[in-house]
Amino acid sequence: MTTRDYPEMLPDDNTIFWENERIFNRTPFYLVKCYYHNTEKIPINMHSHIFYEINIVTKGNGRHYLNEHNYSAHEGCVFVIPPYVRHGYWAKGNMEIFHILLHKDFMIRYSNELANLSGFVLLFEIEPFIRLCSNEDMFLKLDGERIEKLKEELEDLDFLQKCDYPGKEIMKISKTLYVLATLSNYISREQFRKLESPADSYTVAVMRCMEYIYQNMGEKLYIDSLCSMFNMSRSCLFRSFKKICRMTPIQYQLKCRIDKARFLLEFTDNPIQDIALECGFFDCSHFSKVFKNEVGDIPTKYRDKCRKSSTTDDHSYRMECFV
Amino acid sequence: MTTRDYPEMLPDDNTIFWENERIFNRTPFYLVKCYYHNTEKIPINMHSHIFYEINIVTKGNGRHYLNEHNYSAHEGCVFVIPPYVRHGYWAKGNMEIFHILLHKDFMIRYSNELANLSGFVLLFEIEPFIRLCSNEDMFLKLDGERIEKLKEELEDLDFLQKCDYPGKEIMKISKTLYVLATLSNYISREQFRKLESPADSYTVAVMRCMEYIYQNMGEKLYIDSLCSMFNMSRSCLFRSFKKICRMTPIQYQLKCRIDKARFLLEFTDNPIQDIALECGFFDCSHFSKVFKNEVGDIPTKYRDKCRKSSTTDDHSYRMECFV
Repeated sequence: MTTRDYPEMLPDDNTIFWENERIFNRTPFYLVKCYYHNTEKIPINMHSHIFYEINIVTKGNGRHYLNEHNYSAHEGCVFVIPPYVRHGYWAKGNMEIFHILLHKDFMIRYSNELANLSGFVLLFEIEPFIRLCSNEDMFLKLDGERIEKLKEELEDLDFLQKCDYPGKEIMKISKTLYVLATLSNYISREQFRKLESPADSYTVAVMRCMEYIYQNMGEKLYIDSLCSMFNMSRSCLFRSFKKICRMTPIQYQLKCRIDKARFLLEFTDNPIQDIALECGFFDCSHFSKVFKNEVGDIPTKYRDKCRKSSTTDDHSYRMECFV
Repeated sequence: MTTRDYPEMLPDDNTIFWENERIFNRTPFYLVKCYYHNTEKIPINMHSHIFYEINIVTKGNGRHYLNEHNYSAHEGCVFVIPPYVRHGYWAKGNMEIFHILLHKDFMIRYSNELANLSGFVLLFEIEPFIRLCSNEDMFLKLDGERIEKLKEELEDLDFLQKCDYPGKEIMKISKTLYVLATLSNYISREQFRKLESPADSYTVAVMRCMEYIYQNMGEKLYIDSLCSMFNMSRSCLFRSFKKICRMTPIQYQLKCRIDKARFLLEFTDNPIQDIALECGFFDCSHFSKVFKNEVGDIPTKYRDKCRKSSTTDDHSYRMECFV
């Protein structure tokens, strides 16, 4: 066995939490920022931020760190870092990554468009979650023709980021939506591929199952329907689910509901009643009880604290809540 | 002088008014339809429709008919047909046009994005209006490199229109926004070009002036400010304005206000009071009086009739109102 030639952990970055203000200007429609990042020249130690980050490895190879895990990454790998997740990069061989950073207002403004992309939940929610909890990387990996075609779009994005056309923000936003739609489409079809080993096929079935649970988080979950839908026995479903996401399907559904509720409480002014129903709780009192149990505060208090911490730029409250 | 080798007028199409239903499916996000159209093989006689149509001539040359006018068009010409405007195509030399048809819901859903494109008003409002009223064509004309680059995007759009990817509608929408942003950017910079003759420079000044009036239709209009802003004497401003758009600046502002009010009445549920203020009227009663004078009905009655005509698919009311 060869000796490991990369560090097992990365130290913290000087700034461990990056604010929106560090990244995005305050002009209207400044919702996307993107750039090439040579990880050898500028290694990035562990940090987190409030925005989503899409990474496309365009050259070389290296490692990607996430909490206590790390993963090898090479040209064509695509992965998403959700808000508040600690991560960093380390270059073994001149790894170049194209970063696309999405302001939370991007996610809110285009939530309908994104929800209509078939692989979006796999790319933005499920793959990052699996990586976080079980050290398995299910990166989307693009081969020759697909990565070359994508690189052309990234060149355009890079050009738009640097130029000062009037209307360039809208061009950047529309091109970003196009890239996200392309990637979602790829990951969606990727998961449909017939895989070699039965172990892989279980993984794919669990990912599909998680996607189904996510997309139907407002509905009651019937384990028997899941089994027949994904063609697995009850015990196989529970075993595979536990292996891949360290929880049962019902626990995963609860996590989806709580995550969505936190997002809606924090970033919208929707009434608590509406949020409760949208996230699949019976009523406000059921929502309040479960939410307090999981997050530590009742919904109204959580919303208040988030608003306060966002005016004082102190994100420690939200980061504490983020598991 | 050579004899004219094209008809002075085109006959009516079999269907003179095309419904949304003829063009767009009812699936969610089905907001864009696009295709190549060989005008020699399929000539299109005079017709109109409820949606915006963007035309990019990708090959050959021919003629484009608009009410009683007609214009020569060749590869690289870009022009927009607004809703309810009678138009048709006639091919002299195998003219191929790429059509992009935009459902009214596209214009509503992305109105903020479109309003942030600097040349958008020139492309979608002012150039088509000038063509309608003074037989002058100010087409955007793309030269070699720009039309070649654009053709690649149109190929992608054509592919997306024909394929059945999941999420392809979002890809089509995002690519369409990108194309519109590119064209708006071109026409905006085009108008800044130093033009040869003084006559041309007046035309450009008037177009800029119209753009300013459109974008500030909610404000009171001061002719002296316009004169100093666009470096024209009062008499020159009035003369050039009259020549190009057959009305005075104040009349043009009123037209913009009425058009916007009609759109908001027809396609949104915004309260009359809000529409009045947004369109630059003092209050509801001022709005009502002016609107009745111009359109023939008070705003509430206009809205009711539009809603009724849209359920019965009888567009004659709206077409009558359209000047």
